[in-house]
Amino acid sequence: MKSLKIGVCGVGNVGGAVIENLTLSPDTVEFNGGVKIEILQVGARKGKSAVPYNVEVSTDLMEVSQNPDIDVFVELIGGCELAKELIEKSIKNGKNIVTANKALISTHGDELFNLAKENGVQIGFEASVAGGTPVIKALREGLVANKVKWFAGILNGTTNYILSKMTDENSSFEDALKQAQNLGLAEADPTMDVDGTDAAQKASILSALAFNTPFDFSSVAYGGIEKISSDDILYAEQLGYSIKHIAYGSIENGEVNVSAYPTFVSKDQLLSQVGQQMNALEIYCEDIGSTVYYGPGAGPKPTASAVIADLVDISNGGWPVLDNNSKKNQFSKQGNEKFSRYFNLEVKNEAGAIAKVSSLFAKKDISIEALIQKESKQNIDPQNYVPVVIISGKISDLQALAMLKEIESMEEINKSVKQFRIHNAI
Amino acid sequence: MKSLKIGVCGVGNVGGAVIENLTLSPDTVEFNGGVKIEILQVGARKGKSAVPYNVEVSTDLMEVSQNPDIDVFVELIGGCELAKELIEKSIKNGKNIVTANKALISTHGDELFNLAKENGVQIGFEASVAGGTPVIKALREGLVANKVKWFAGILNGTTNYILSKMTDENSSFEDALKQAQNLGLAEADPTMDVDGTDAAQKASILSALAFNTPFDFSSVAYGGIEKISSDDILYAEQLGYSIKHIAYGSIENGEVNVSAYPTFVSKDQLLSQVGQQMNALEIYCEDIGSTVYYGPGAGPKPTASAVIADLVDISNGGWPVLDNNSKKNQFSKQGNEKFSRYFNLEVKNEAGAIAKVSSLFAKKDISIEALIQKESKQNIDPQNYVPVVIISGKISDLQALAMLKEIESMEEINKSVKQFRIHNAI
Repeated sequence: MKSLKIGVCGVGNVGGAVIENLTLSPDTVEFNGGVKIEILQVGARKGKSAVPYNVEVSTDLMEVSQNPDIDVFVELIGGCELAKELIEKSIKNGKNIVTANKALISTHGDELFNLAKENGVQIGFEASVAGGTPVIKALREGLVANKVKWFAGILNGTTNYILSKMTDENSSFEDALKQAQNLGLAEADPTMDVDGTDAAQKASILSALAFNTPFDFSSVAYGGIEKISSDDILYAEQLGYSIKHIAYGSIENGEVNVSAYPTFVSKDQLLSQVGQQMNALEIYCEDIGSTVYYGPGAGPKPTASAVIADLVDISNGGWPVLDNNSKKNQFSKQGNEKFSRYFNLEVKNEAGAIAKVSSLFAKKDISIEALIQKESKQNIDPQNYVPVVIISGKISDLQALAMLKEIESMEEINKSVKQFRIHNAI
Repeated sequence: MKSLKIGVCGVGNVGGAVIENLTLSPDTVEFNGGVKIEILQVGARKGKSAVPYNVEVSTDLMEVSQNPDIDVFVELIGGCELAKELIEKSIKNGKNIVTANKALISTHGDELFNLAKENGVQIGFEASVAGGTPVIKALREGLVANKVKWFAGILNGTTNYILSKMTDENSSFEDALKQAQNLGLAEADPTMDVDGTDAAQKASILSALAFNTPFDFSSVAYGGIEKISSDDILYAEQLGYSIKHIAYGSIENGEVNVSAYPTFVSKDQLLSQVGQQMNALEIYCEDIGSTVYYGPGAGPKPTASAVIADLVDISNGGWPVLDNNSKKNQFSKQGNEKFSRYFNLEVKNEAGAIAKVSSLFAKKDISIEALIQKESKQNIDPQNYVPVVIISGKISDLQALAMLKEIESMEEINKSVKQFRIHNAI
């Protein structure tokens, strides 16, 4: 049987699950994958006490990068600085890399893949997107014969859990977030999940593979779910949609748009049915249409599953090396892609106010596909505003933002207006 | 760039699509896969006229198996006799194999993989299950670190199309089948699709990979959708289910059950939402739970997509060789797995008749979870029978069949009783 000698840096939840799987039940991988994976060294700054397994532990992580007996360096410490340094050192020492580090790959991917190519080694990063659901494998291997036109994914489990709770149990955003934190599905500081950063990083990685763009997180437009209220969830329901946080990328004439925003998804779409903390990715290709991949997007065991799959792949020769020197497709100016939109506003309960809003849309040549006007909240709202929801025709992000400002500047309008995309379903 | 020289036998819809993709737009595969795939020879019994591309054509298919310049023999003629002979000859001549032939792999897989192992070549068969949806890749590569507990799949597009039409448009089975035939989704003789054979063959292939059973189609229990009526569809709807044809495999204590039957799937399950002619496969693993793969399961371009993905994989070193010599798990006697059941019967509209049916269930120690008794169809049914639907507790296939016979033998019962499984959802 083949053997593969690895070093693992990082013994948090994911590192722990990788070490546990490979030391306690190596038979599964040996049988399924035909390779004996030996952990030669573990890098853990806290030392041996943090690693309850019979493996050599070094508190000097750099030592693992330099260990001449190691074939693959597994980076599971996260973050962009030390992780990058360790990976670069390992590559220069001729080691293949497996990492779950989406922040690093989405920002420094090109640099790292170039270095890997120069040194004749490979970088596996299946675990960086959608955890235990093998979406990177599907995208670059399973769909290798196809041109991807667009992808749409629920790539952040925390926000999907929160939105699902808000939908299924009428929880408030704050309560749903608290529940997610209690269940370990959200960090104490949940910013990176809730504000869309995490999903945008993953979208950037998918874009590089699907559309041959640079790995460039800074070109991804994104927003979070903080502003979504129970009202929005109810309106979505009435209109036949679920609200999901959707990472969306598309290519048209070589121009690539990638973004990650809360989005209305029609209930007849599979993505709208993805509940709890699950992830799903829909990939639409020119000749074959949509394929969808659904599964656990985070957590120690699913992430470890992806890390180990990469290790087995490396033992079998790895993947086609990413061609970083070919001319890359560039990201378009943010927001050229057009979507129908949901606008949620409160209009003064007085004659002609709604007509004024409508005529603003008409003036901007934006069609109104639907308008819901609820009864006045007279009893509870001293200022006597009427909630109004408008579904517009397809407009770009820039048009939508401009419209938002115009509406907000009207004196008949209360509070800040909300606007969300409606997914361009097939 | 690497190069791979292939011979293609069979120029029907799928063969045509493979040749078209590789000759008209080779750039996609070259860019994505890093390999130049050259078609050196095409085997077509009808000769050059059947192959409107600039490639060498031989009417003697065996010549392609013997062509010394060919690295991979691509078998797309279907059937079990000539295809097997060609593949065996090719393997003995040191060629790797790519095939879409589910009938062949599900019956002679072990023999062929042993021969391939002896000759140091590989067999790719991604196209044999779920067409353009890379489920075999997911199962043996993406999930390599996991123990599969069960899988459940919609693996036959024709039956799913028919059931979807019956559900969405209240079509009769016959009308829906005709529509499928008009659209080219069903053969003139649709037997293999409609009676469950096709899905059972695919289930047998998945079982070999998921549970290390022999490739043994004859051990798969299966049934078709012919008996499903509009009534059943309506009852399912009322009870919160969709009727799907589900290929199901599971392992418990080394005992494997594999089958393919029409099955009630709860509407909160993703599989229940798979419409039209689409396929989907849910794979449940011990540590990570369910992942689901959805996409086009047939058709020339999706199948060609899978064939080409296999070719690229072979150019990158291929897959771990299946270990055919290790002790295989065996199929259990058919039907040990327990499911809740749907029984549809017509009971004489007379005092005590339904009580008699109920007490029959009680006597056999089978619980009744739900019982729907519709009003008598007095006007249209001269014999005055009442339709009754019973949802039973979990029983095995054998218990269900025995129960069926007992019910049918009651003099208060009209016509043949129908029984369908209810999917064991998580």
